[in-house]
Amino acid sequence: MIRVAILGASGYTALELCRLLLRHPEVEITALTTRQPGRPSLAEVHPALAGRLDLALEQLTTAEVAERADCVFSCLPHGASASAVATLLDADCSVIDFSADYRLRDVSVYEATYGVTHPDPERLPQTVYGLPELYRKRIKSARLVANPGCYPTAAILALAPLLRTNLISADTIIVDSKSGASGAGRQPKPNLHFPECNENLAAYSVGSHRHTPEIDQVLCDMANHDNQTKNPVRVLFVPHLIPMDRGILSTCYGVPQDKTSREIVLDTLRDAYQNEPFIRISESLPMTKQVVGSNFCDLTAQVVRDRVVVVSVIDNLLKGASGAAVQNFNLMHGFPETTALL
Amino acid sequence: MIRVAILGASGYTALELCRLLLRHPEVEITALTTRQPGRPSLAEVHPALAGRLDLALEQLTTAEVAERADCVFSCLPHGASASAVATLLDADCSVIDFSADYRLRDVSVYEATYGVTHPDPERLPQTVYGLPELYRKRIKSARLVANPGCYPTAAILALAPLLRTNLISADTIIVDSKSGASGAGRQPKPNLHFPECNENLAAYSVGSHRHTPEIDQVLCDMANHDNQTKNPVRVLFVPHLIPMDRGILSTCYGVPQDKTSREIVLDTLRDAYQNEPFIRISESLPMTKQVVGSNFCDLTAQVVRDRVVVVSVIDNLLKGASGAAVQNFNLMHGFPETTALL
Amino acid sequence: MIRVAILGASGYTALELCRLLLRHPEVEITALTTRQPGRPSLAEVHPALAGRLDLALEQLTTAEVAERADCVFSCLPHGASASAVATLLDADCSVIDFSADYRLRDVSVYEATYGVTHPDPERLPQTVYGLPELYRKRIKSARLVANPGCYPTAAILALAPLLRTNLISADTIIVDSKSGASGAGRQPKPNLHFPECNENLAAYSVGSHRHTPEIDQVLCDMANHDNQTKNPVRVLFVPHLIPMDRGILSTCYGVPQDKTSREIVLDTLRDAYQNEPFIRISESLPMTKQVVGSNFCDLTAQVVRDRVVVVSVIDNLLKGASGAAVQNFNLMHGFPETTALL
Amino acid sequence: MIRVAILGASGYTALELCRLLLRHPEVEITALTTRQPGRPSLAEVHPALAGRLDLALEQLTTAEVAERADCVFSCLPHGASASAVATLLDADCSVIDFSADYRLRDVSVYEATYGVTHPDPERLPQTVYGLPELYRKRIKSARLVANPGCYPTAAILALAPLLRTNLISADTIIVDSKSGASGAGRQPKPNLHFPECNENLAAYSVGSHRHTPEIDQVLCDMANHDNQTKNPVRVLFVPHLIPMDRGILSTCYGVPQDKTSREIVLDTLRDAYQNEPFIRISESLPMTKQVVGSNFCDLTAQVVRDRVVVVSVIDNLLKGASGAAVQNFNLMHGFPETTALL
Repeated sequence: MIRVAILGASGYTALELCRLLLRHPEVEITALTTRQPGRPSLAEVHPALAGRLDLALEQLTTAEVAERADCVFSCLPHGASASAVATLLDADCSVIDFSADYRLRDVSVYEATYGVTHPDPERLPQTVYGLPELYRKRIKSARLVANPGCYPTAAILALAPLLRTNLISADTIIVDSKSGASGAGRQPKPNLHFPECNENLAAYSVGSHRHTPEIDQVLCDMANHDNQTKNPVRVLFVPHLIPMDRGILSTCYGVPQDKTSREIVLDTLRDAYQNEPFIRISESLPMTKQVVGSNFCDLTAQVVRDRVVVVSVIDNLLKGASGAAVQNFNLMHGFPETTALL
Repeated sequence: MIRVAILGASGYTALELCRLLLRHPEVEITALTTRQPGRPSLAEVHPALAGRLDLALEQLTTAEVAERADCVFSCLPHGASASAVATLLDADCSVIDFSADYRLRDVSVYEATYGVTHPDPERLPQTVYGLPELYRKRIKSARLVANPGCYPTAAILALAPLLRTNLISADTIIVDSKSGASGAGRQPKPNLHFPECNENLAAYSVGSHRHTPEIDQVLCDMANHDNQTKNPVRVLFVPHLIPMDRGILSTCYGVPQDKTSREIVLDTLRDAYQNEPFIRISESLPMTKQVVGSNFCDLTAQVVRDRVVVVSVIDNLLKGASGAAVQNFNLMHGFPETTALL
Repeated sequence: MIRVAILGASGYTALELCRLLLRHPEVEITALTTRQPGRPSLAEVHPALAGRLDLALEQLTTAEVAERADCVFSCLPHGASASAVATLLDADCSVIDFSADYRLRDVSVYEATYGVTHPDPERLPQTVYGLPELYRKRIKSARLVANPGCYPTAAILALAPLLRTNLISADTIIVDSKSGASGAGRQPKPNLHFPECNENLAAYSVGSHRHTPEIDQVLCDMANHDNQTKNPVRVLFVPHLIPMDRGILSTCYGVPQDKTSREIVLDTLRDAYQNEPFIRISESLPMTKQVVGSNFCDLTAQVVRDRVVVVSVIDNLLKGASGAAVQNFNLMHGFPETTALL
Repeated sequence: MIRVAILGASGYTALELCRLLLRHPEVEITALTTRQPGRPSLAEVHPALAGRLDLALEQLTTAEVAERADCVFSCLPHGASASAVATLLDADCSVIDFSADYRLRDVSVYEATYGVTHPDPERLPQTVYGLPELYRKRIKSARLVANPGCYPTAAILALAPLLRTNLISADTIIVDSKSGASGAGRQPKPNLHFPECNENLAAYSVGSHRHTPEIDQVLCDMANHDNQTKNPVRVLFVPHLIPMDRGILSTCYGVPQDKTSREIVLDTLRDAYQNEPFIRISESLPMTKQVVGSNFCDLTAQVVRDRVVVVSVIDNLLKGASGAAVQNFNLMHGFPETTALL
């Protein structure tokens, strides 16, 4: 039985994480933290979990958390997360970090992107990016895993096999992504006020979204490029906010290096993911609804007017966050990878 | 040409009011106020109105407003509104007040309901409740009109004719109302955060909603009762928040005083509203969508298991707010009642 | 291991049922039927289940189903279901019937309500109504269980304890229900066409909904009344269609027999359901979202203006259909009641 | 006063068209046609219009329509529309055709795209494409105007100025479009069934949508190319279905021919549209909600990673259909272009 703590347990990813972990036969949730005072019960913060777990959300120190838990899921915001993570690792906890703090290997890219000084920069070069389909072996032996961002998960799973096989050019990629509103978190904001967001549709952070360098970095790995070289992968990433709770659909466009066909692209995806428990390749166009509530990423591809179009869908809170985290947890602790996820 | 000002112009009712007034051939909008600093343009606050009206939202004193306008629509919050209104009336402006400040005749009921001291209590007994279908004659000669609340409009229009004719008992009325989220205003709040409100449904303020005394007061008028007598109308009012932008549907239940029938109830409604330009009685059940974007209130009634059920639908921002306000404006200034409303 | 078949497997309740049964350690799904020709795969009909179960939907005879399965869930429409059920029971299958065919004990009420001749009327008087909170003991020994309707589940769970204790009068009950659109099934219809249903709200089947006699019958049981006596429970039931996928909220109104209080009502509910794994009583008003995706029914009550208001929420596809069915399945087969449901 | 008829008056575009025409001071609606038998009243078909226009939908011959009307709006499906149009023009009616029948100049492209034989191919080469911003002069003198498709309107208005000025390459354009569900019409279909479409998101008709040749043709005009030459504009067009009623957002990607900047692109758009009453250029990213209910097309542009991104938003039923039709009507009949549209 692994004793598990969740830092920052009042948000949507923590709610989904609790739902999953409550089904996990080898997990006991022993601590939930919050910045809110007053020790609210889990049921007050997440009424859906009333009666499921008799635990309060507490303002615990990192040391107190380390005493109660073997493995810690951090849902803290960036900056705050790395400070806690460093202490937890020193106290022999394993950690799965939902924040962006350990996703980017280059501290200068991190600091330019997030506008804060990284509190634990030495650890960055060796951190493990928690996308099992690409880095499973390293995850299995990791004590700290950087859980991927939701948009990067959808984009990278769509494009990685095509870059690894040089099927598309590295410098022509457009990722036009559409996400439900839960991806923006639980904090009320004007653009997520129901009468603003509902029946509305907008692009945002065009060319400046923080997930861009994360996509670039991993796709560079795939293309055997290096961020420091002259010809890195530089994705044009445009996210859009969709009036629905959950789900990301990414429409990814690339120029083939050579003449290609739909069958070649689909076969490349099938080859890459043939043993993956959570990737499904189909000929029909996937809809977000078919993956919402699951840890699946569904993919298809077409070749239209000499360009490759790959469409991927995930549940941003599961494969894009808490599902991936549990998948990483299973790998790190030697449990069957799909435990609590099907 | 009437010069018109709007106080508190950054909300949803002000946006709808601007849309209507821009179509009104006898209106010139001359001032828009806000508590926000920085003189934002109307287009910044309401991008839908970009290019329609070259005016900024300003922090104006009431005196400055009175100089620029003949008629003032106040979309200020309760309390703040009455303070401004009193000054404006003294400066010879006519006023249509969207707040609750002049809706309740009894200052003690007002203060118990809204939890504030009324800044202008002397004026309350003579104020005019701006529901044209019931008080048209008084509205025509008023200089101050209290624009009705959205829930009261839907409930009162459904029930008034049945109380006026003693068709239903005054003490058995249940109003089960369902409203879209725009009724709660533009200020972000946790329960109106998109991922909370979307795909969700809840009752709220059960038995304690501030619109209850307003409904009671007007229906008492209709039943020829008095709030101070022993047998006033005391409605059981339960509002629900519906995951949609606009529209209120009220399902109103009453016990008939004598044996009745659907045709009798429908005829009572038809008699009451036969010359009304914005009330439509039908045999089919009305949907909110058929009135959204319009100033109509659509009604039907059924008699089921010896009880009367009246269903009413309105657009909460139009017949329930800004449309009614323009209707009142037309009546007060002698314009055809439907001007800018069809 | 129980071999399980699902009749009529292309709808929403069958999809949810598959999701649950795939998690059930004692179940093997062995047959899925459909009226569609061509043996579509489960993944074609329900893309969400791609890769989960390698089974086609087939046009099987009832005899073929009986050979493959020990227990059959029938998601067939009323009329068709009873014909299949009778054959299956004769072939020694146990059956959980989602249709209305075995819910009403009085065949004349059934035939007046559903407008068809009942193909198996002899069995009606002894059938078991599958609401575990009221009929658990009979369910445990049943071979046929009539799975309750979604609206009746929400209404009955809210009201049963109050009628059993004579807390409210039997003849004053109003059930104002609001349901998401999945309750209407998967067949496209004009009123469920997205641009008609979305951003819209309407009452429907006012006083004539087919679930009314079902609610009446069970609440009569609770009130120790009989439908044939002079003073049966006759609920005024008004359903509304809400623009969301899933969830029912019922606002139930009753007149107390004696002076009562909120605490008395809440305690009555708590007493009735204290050992129930899927009923949660709270002081705060429940939202549908807190039960969607779960088998919970959440309840609260208030006393306002001398009337009792009970609010209940369920997921119409789970506690209102497939979750209840699995709960019944567990009881019938001696498995822990919550298996596959938490 | 122009006598106006609407063919195929039961759909969403006809509803919006009626709303607009009822506000037009120079229009009298004299005939509405339908394929439905039984002469349903307008109020039955469109409850929103109850009390607005006392007219039935009739099964009229084209000759009967021609007798009653000076100008005919055809909302008939493609194929059917051209047959009616030809007769109406011969009878001296002017026509605004919502179908695709007169949009494509090349009959072979039309027949390949729509899979039907064109009933009136001789007229195609001279028809006028009803996008006032590009073809105003020709529209003014036309007796037949082909009203543009909704997707083409959003895409062409975004890209036309950039192709006319050779700012972007003609062969690199990607149009990633997102549309609300009303664009698919009023006929119930499985993918538009509320529980399928709601909370869901999918690409569709990738590379095969019928609006593609329409976009290509007009952008070719703009680039001074010809479809028959070696280097035509060949847009990669990918539409997506968004769970909302109304609104299209198109995210358009192009490769600049020379080094460019955001200011250059914005100035190019501003120059092109400086006198246009319904085009608004802004620096902020436009949302569909700010144009829904209006005839505006709002645009912005950015230059990111050496590519040009133009975002456009329209109301698919107004600027994308009925609003454009009234704008064309005004131009054809010499009325101020914005009549009934502000």
